[in-house]
Amino acid sequence: SSNIRLAVIPGDGIGTEVVAEGLKVLNAAGVKSETTEYDLGAKRYHATGQTLPDEVLDELRGYDAILLGAVGDPSVPPGVLERDLLLRLRFELDHYVNLRPVKLFPGVTTPLGQARPEDIDMIVVREGTEGPYAGAGGVMRRGTPQEIATQESLNTAYGVERVVRYAFERAVARPRRKLTLVHKTNVLTYAGDLWARTVDRLSLEFPEVETDYCHVDAASMFFISQPQRFDVIVTDNLFGDILTDIGAAVAGGIGLAASGNVNPARTAPSMFEPVHGSAPDIAGQGKADPTATILSVAMLLDHLGHAEAAARVEQAVADDLIERQSGWTARSTREIGDDIAARVAG
Amino acid sequence: SSNIRLAVIPGDGIGTEVVAEGLKVLNAAGVKSETTEYDLGAKRYHATGQTLPDEVLDELRGYDAILLGAVGDPSVPPGVLERDLLLRLRFELDHYVNLRPVKLFPGVTTPLGQARPEDIDMIVVREGTEGPYAGAGGVMRRGTPQEIATQESLNTAYGVERVVRYAFERAVARPRRKLTLVHKTNVLTYAGDLWARTVDRLSLEFPEVETDYCHVDAASMFFISQPQRFDVIVTDNLFGDILTDIGAAVAGGIGLAASGNVNPARTAPSMFEPVHGSAPDIAGQGKADPTATILSVAMLLDHLGHAEAAARVEQAVADDLIERQSGWTARSTREIGDDIAARVAG
Ligand SMILES: CC(C)[C@H](C(=O)O)[C@@H](O)C(=O)O
Ligand SMILES: CC(C)[C@H](C(=O)O)[C@@H](O)C(=O)O
Repeated sequence: SSNIRLAVIPGDGIGTEVVAEGLKVLNAAGVKSETTEYDLGAKRYHATGQTLPDEVLDELRGYDAILLGAVGDPSVPPGVLERDLLLRLRFELDHYVNLRPVKLFPGVTTPLGQARPEDIDMIVVREGTEGPYAGAGGVMRRGTPQEIATQESLNTAYGVERVVRYAFERAVARPRRKLTLVHKTNVLTYAGDLWARTVDRLSLEFPEVETDYCHVDAASMFFISQPQRFDVIVTDNLFGDILTDIGAAVAGGIGLAASGNVNPARTAPSMFEPVHGSAPDIAGQGKADPTATILSVAMLLDHLGHAEAAARVEQAVADDLIERQSGWTARSTREIGDDIAARVAG
Repeated sequence: SSNIRLAVIPGDGIGTEVVAEGLKVLNAAGVKSETTEYDLGAKRYHATGQTLPDEVLDELRGYDAILLGAVGDPSVPPGVLERDLLLRLRFELDHYVNLRPVKLFPGVTTPLGQARPEDIDMIVVREGTEGPYAGAGGVMRRGTPQEIATQESLNTAYGVERVVRYAFERAVARPRRKLTLVHKTNVLTYAGDLWARTVDRLSLEFPEVETDYCHVDAASMFFISQPQRFDVIVTDNLFGDILTDIGAAVAGGIGLAASGNVNPARTAPSMFEPVHGSAPDIAGQGKADPTATILSVAMLLDHLGHAEAAARVEQAVADDLIERQSGWTARSTREIGDDIAARVAG
């Protein structure tokens, strides 16, 4: 097949460092790619005041996929790059599935004393374009004792159905075939009811899939006490944000958590990124773990139809993680990338 | 001082069982009380269709405090008792502080392999009367492909200030004097901004308190990977719901998690309840752990000015928990209550 046309947004802080290793491993996987780098992030914001110019967004639409490192820097007012760059990309490119595997690899240390790899193996399908992330809300009488601030979660049948359908499709393809809706239907009754009815309705189309429901507070607890309850989870944008950080914590830390912002309809390129942020405190020191980015590259390969190459990258990471447990000396970002790339090249 | 006038709502499922042990320990503590039981919950709902009649609510206002077991039963449509009974009590009695200690007692098994009691010792001050729990929202074109469902978080300067002030007052009285606001200011900008500005403003009145901020996703992770980051946390109603279940999981399970729905202005009685639910699957079998209810009774005593009795109950629980680790045979709900009551009396 032809080259992958890849847009790369290294971003801020450790973003640059981890993306370099991701690309190294992509190359090693033997899938031809042509990459174009975009300097979006804090530097561009300071130089030009721009976060995501419309022309750049239009250009990005032309790629097969996007690899993003991390955005955010203490020098930029909090929230600006997150909203006007990261979330804007997710919304404009209609990344309605935020796909986040939560998987404990053998050999990885988890804070959970008793958990075994077979206990933690799930996929969180987080909605990516609506819900509490819509940006809807307002403020009145700001700064006075009579101030009121509102924040609105917007949920559409269109938006909920497409992500729930995707989750069913993932669930039916896995051995356990179990799909759990996580929400807070007893309190968020309007939104919760739409989500619950949608799962009920689509379950008729997927009779092989066992469906379950769990309130978000209980699910958060079960991620720690009984992670084996879960196979595929479908949930809203905000609950998914929280759950996947709990998932990262129990599955060995944020250094290993990969994600894909996926547009399954393929009307725009999907974007792959580690779940972690730009970590300005350790930036430029070669201390960041590039593994989450490398696993995101595996997801990218899989999304573009290179399942075999994706599996090879994931296996190389798995092998590297096993070796780490036998008391290796600490490796730099680059050394970890080199080692995994060598395994992939094989 | 005169008798405590206590309203007791055992509720559903294991509620009855655990409340009996709570009252047993209250008696053993030597603080005189007069209790009146209210049969609110599933039984009353089925018999009369009522959840919380106005006359009962008015009566409840006359007590010094309320002890609640748990509400909810599979025979009642989901959410009805939670909203029309439990949440209605919290709202009508203006329980604007939902106080939830997260504390790992010595001897208690935590799923976190490495955590020591000194690592997990915090108080979550959860807002209890507004935010996403306001019940605001709506649905349009229900059941059609054009459906839209909204859910609104309502935050007032009045509501946020009073709970943040309470949190500062708790923080200043603790050795570490650290207060962390947990929110999601980078996405929920309107509500988050009100919360952040309120913490900043009140911090001028509490210069001894170190303040910190943490996004809810990161905080959820830190509860697992670095719980020692936290001393007092202040957060909104929904984030507090999620965080305190994570807290319960890491601090030894939902069987130990106590809570107080507190009206610090004392315009109505405060209500104390275990964080766990009615657990219909084990109801009536004497299997429920009454410890969370007993610790809630300690909070009740403390709230009513019986600090010494409260400390005695908490110490008795601590001693009992140490004994549990040395391989005791499983005890029934009643036996645990008896043992703790004997320690308190003795
Ligand atoms: C940076 C932030 C806006 C983002 C989110 O909330 O989605 C991040 O936490 C994530 O999970 O990718
Ligand atoms: C039962 C439910 C309404 C309640 C809540 O969400 O507050 C419960 O989860 C709790 O934490 O006390």
